[in-house]
Amino acid sequence: MQKKKNIAIVGSGLVGSLLAIYLRKQGHGVTVFDRRPDVRTVEFSGRSINLAMSNRGWKALAEAGIEKEIRQLALPLDKRAMHVVDKPVYFQKYGNDGEAIYSISRGVLNRKMIDLAEEAGAVFRFEEKVWDVDMRSAQLFTGESEKSEWKEYQFDLVFGADGAFSRIRHKMQRQSRFNYSQHFIDVGYKELTIPANADGSHKLDNASFHIWPRGEFMLIAMPNLDGSFTCTLFLPFEGKVSFESLQTEEQADDFFERYFPDIKDEISNLKRDFFKNPTSAMVTIKCFPWSYYDKITLVGDSAHAIVPFYGQGMNAGFEDISVLYSKIEKYGDDWESIFEEYQNERKPNADAIAELSYRNFIEMSSKTADPSFLLRKKIEKKFTNKYPEKWIPLYSRVTFSDKSYSEALKIGDWQRQVMDEVMKMPNISEDWDQPEVEEKILELIQKKKPESIS
Amino acid sequence: MQKKKNIAIVGSGLVGSLLAIYLRKQGHGVTVFDRRPDVRTVEFSGRSINLAMSNRGWKALAEAGIEKEIRQLALPLDKRAMHVVDKPVYFQKYGNDGEAIYSISRGVLNRKMIDLAEEAGAVFRFEEKVWDVDMRSAQLFTGESEKSEWKEYQFDLVFGADGAFSRIRHKMQRQSRFNYSQHFIDVGYKELTIPANADGSHKLDNASFHIWPRGEFMLIAMPNLDGSFTCTLFLPFEGKVSFESLQTEEQADDFFERYFPDIKDEISNLKRDFFKNPTSAMVTIKCFPWSYYDKITLVGDSAHAIVPFYGQGMNAGFEDISVLYSKIEKYGDDWESIFEEYQNERKPNADAIAELSYRNFIEMSSKTADPSFLLRKKIEKKFTNKYPEKWIPLYSRVTFSDKSYSEALKIGDWQRQVMDEVMKMPNISEDWDQPEVEEKILELIQKKKPESIS
Repeated sequence: MQKKKNIAIVGSGLVGSLLAIYLRKQGHGVTVFDRRPDVRTVEFSGRSINLAMSNRGWKALAEAGIEKEIRQLALPLDKRAMHVVDKPVYFQKYGNDGEAIYSISRGVLNRKMIDLAEEAGAVFRFEEKVWDVDMRSAQLFTGESEKSEWKEYQFDLVFGADGAFSRIRHKMQRQSRFNYSQHFIDVGYKELTIPANADGSHKLDNASFHIWPRGEFMLIAMPNLDGSFTCTLFLPFEGKVSFESLQTEEQADDFFERYFPDIKDEISNLKRDFFKNPTSAMVTIKCFPWSYYDKITLVGDSAHAIVPFYGQGMNAGFEDISVLYSKIEKYGDDWESIFEEYQNERKPNADAIAELSYRNFIEMSSKTADPSFLLRKKIEKKFTNKYPEKWIPLYSRVTFSDKSYSEALKIGDWQRQVMDEVMKMPNISEDWDQPEVEEKILELIQKKKPESIS
Repeated sequence: MQKKKNIAIVGSGLVGSLLAIYLRKQGHGVTVFDRRPDVRTVEFSGRSINLAMSNRGWKALAEAGIEKEIRQLALPLDKRAMHVVDKPVYFQKYGNDGEAIYSISRGVLNRKMIDLAEEAGAVFRFEEKVWDVDMRSAQLFTGESEKSEWKEYQFDLVFGADGAFSRIRHKMQRQSRFNYSQHFIDVGYKELTIPANADGSHKLDNASFHIWPRGEFMLIAMPNLDGSFTCTLFLPFEGKVSFESLQTEEQADDFFERYFPDIKDEISNLKRDFFKNPTSAMVTIKCFPWSYYDKITLVGDSAHAIVPFYGQGMNAGFEDISVLYSKIEKYGDDWESIFEEYQNERKPNADAIAELSYRNFIEMSSKTADPSFLLRKKIEKKFTNKYPEKWIPLYSRVTFSDKSYSEALKIGDWQRQVMDEVMKMPNISEDWDQPEVEEKILELIQKKKPESIS
């Protein structure tokens, strides 16, 4: 058992709340600051993408002893439902039988986790804005505004769980030799809603992640417990078909009529919500170091914000807490070693999932409708079904395992090289089902594996 | 002639001062803010690397009508003097006859440029700290500290010339969709001095840029007008031979004795200065956009800080001002178009010189002593001497021309590919001087040129 510490967590989002539960179970004093109001008391913002909890997330929740409560809030999705223009909907299974991702509303989950953290004894200070941190002494300064009177708090440790635009990281960034990057993609997103049927049932299959891929843009929909779907439209900010080009209700209506005729009429208050809901940007943030001696460390988006196209943002943040927890078990009261090993182990994995998420942005919007890409997937699928121990698809490694993201990236790159060779085979589009394709793969994976893979 | 504007420049460094002169000559009201004291009234900081003015710098100074004054402060260096262990010093000419880079002390140059800007009518407000800028209204806020009472200034335009850790950019960075990165290299530097001989003459050849390459680290020396040399030691922060490993005067003394025996005794107060002078970090900073409508724009290091290994930091900053000037001539009072075209034209060039400078960091420290690298240079040199119109070396494109940095990078990459092929020729180290090598190069450059190169 560790010596009791007086610990501050800045940020009451998903990762901050989970960390609060962990640390309370270790017996520490925990105060959670958030500049925003308590999400349990306000309507959720209308700028969220539904979450997809997968293996890493569940593992961290189980370690905190709260998996069961959270399972009740989640709907399993075992496949993609592809809505391609002028074709019937078709389905792509995510993994093996019993493997699924779990759709959860961010608002619902966050409220529940704050409840659980409070039950565990964490103190929440909402609408209290942290403006500065003294990194050497772990003092926090809060107040109405940057220029108002500040209140001073003394802690033993401070965790920055305050998201992509973290104030704690912002302070660390002014140190010399702090590496940092923020890179926005040129695509924004907007939340829309498909309400439940009158009887509370879902209007679309509720065990599917629905995608309407349209090349440069796409619509997705994920089910909620109440029968509704949270939809997200991903669309370039500027250009021929873009948020900028949709300025009037008529233009928005025409856009949906043209590109999403099968679902347009199911979206509630389409024209109103399109202009009422904000258009949000997406950013990849990388930085290093994440820690300052035994005083400060960053967790979740504040350390590694990623674009949402692999559904791993929350999962990666929760896995940070799993890793911290394992280092606490290893090092006990030596917080400097805990933080040091945590950041060194997590950093390459955070970079890997950032890269994978960015690549999936390209893949989901453009390639999911590309015949050659679909053929690849079909060949891979057949092979992995026959030789599950020889070929775990990249998506499964990321989503249904807790092996490191960096290993997944490395093996994924190697698998892509193998498939590049396979796709060069003559008449592959006709003969993809023939035994020589399978033999070719077996031969190729025999020949060369990336380093450090057994 | 433009309509008179009331313009603020934040930062009285080299680029800020040059901009002040330009804008005063256009008739604008110019106020320059600097949080530090007037450099003319204080000793310079002991953390500078001497500057190497080259073609782009001179061009911008000429356009501002101050080239002649600055020439008097500069010493031409037409070659590198290589001090390799256990070999006599040897020389590498930089370019053709008459081509040279010019060594100038940063302090001497900055003082002179502030004098010239004041003579031109710019108002300098030293020790006045800018804490905030309202980007829409071009208001500046200054004060003793971030939390003190602030003074408010209303301007028409604000230029951020406040260096790598720019406060103005810092404010822009909080905008959504602002891309930003800062990346520190693991090598630091420290300034040292070789004083003049008793008669005021230089202790080393004063028309050379002196380099002591030692693989992972190196020492350089550049002459000053007063007979002294400003030396810079580049050394990893951590590792076997590093700043971290040199903790005592004895260790520092042993280090110089072992690696720089030929020059050690000429460095004044070596042991004292080594510990008195700060160890400085080097960073590459990239961001975009640089401008905010017709209100704000960034120039110099605040927009594109680079590592110093191509000697182009100041030159690139001065070239920003040249480009701004050309856009002012083109667009007159349309400041939004001036800023827009300025940033779009400069950004790829800033990225290119960042890349070239980073590569030279590798090249200068490790490759300048590598026989195969030197052989390449020798072959290139011979070829370019015979066919000067067919092969302008990369260094000359960057240093002795004002063609764009991005073109230089592209052609440089293509030349490297050509030389890679040449170096694969059998017995190249013996036969490098033979006609077939020349024929091979002619054949290769005939075959393929990068796009957009005539």
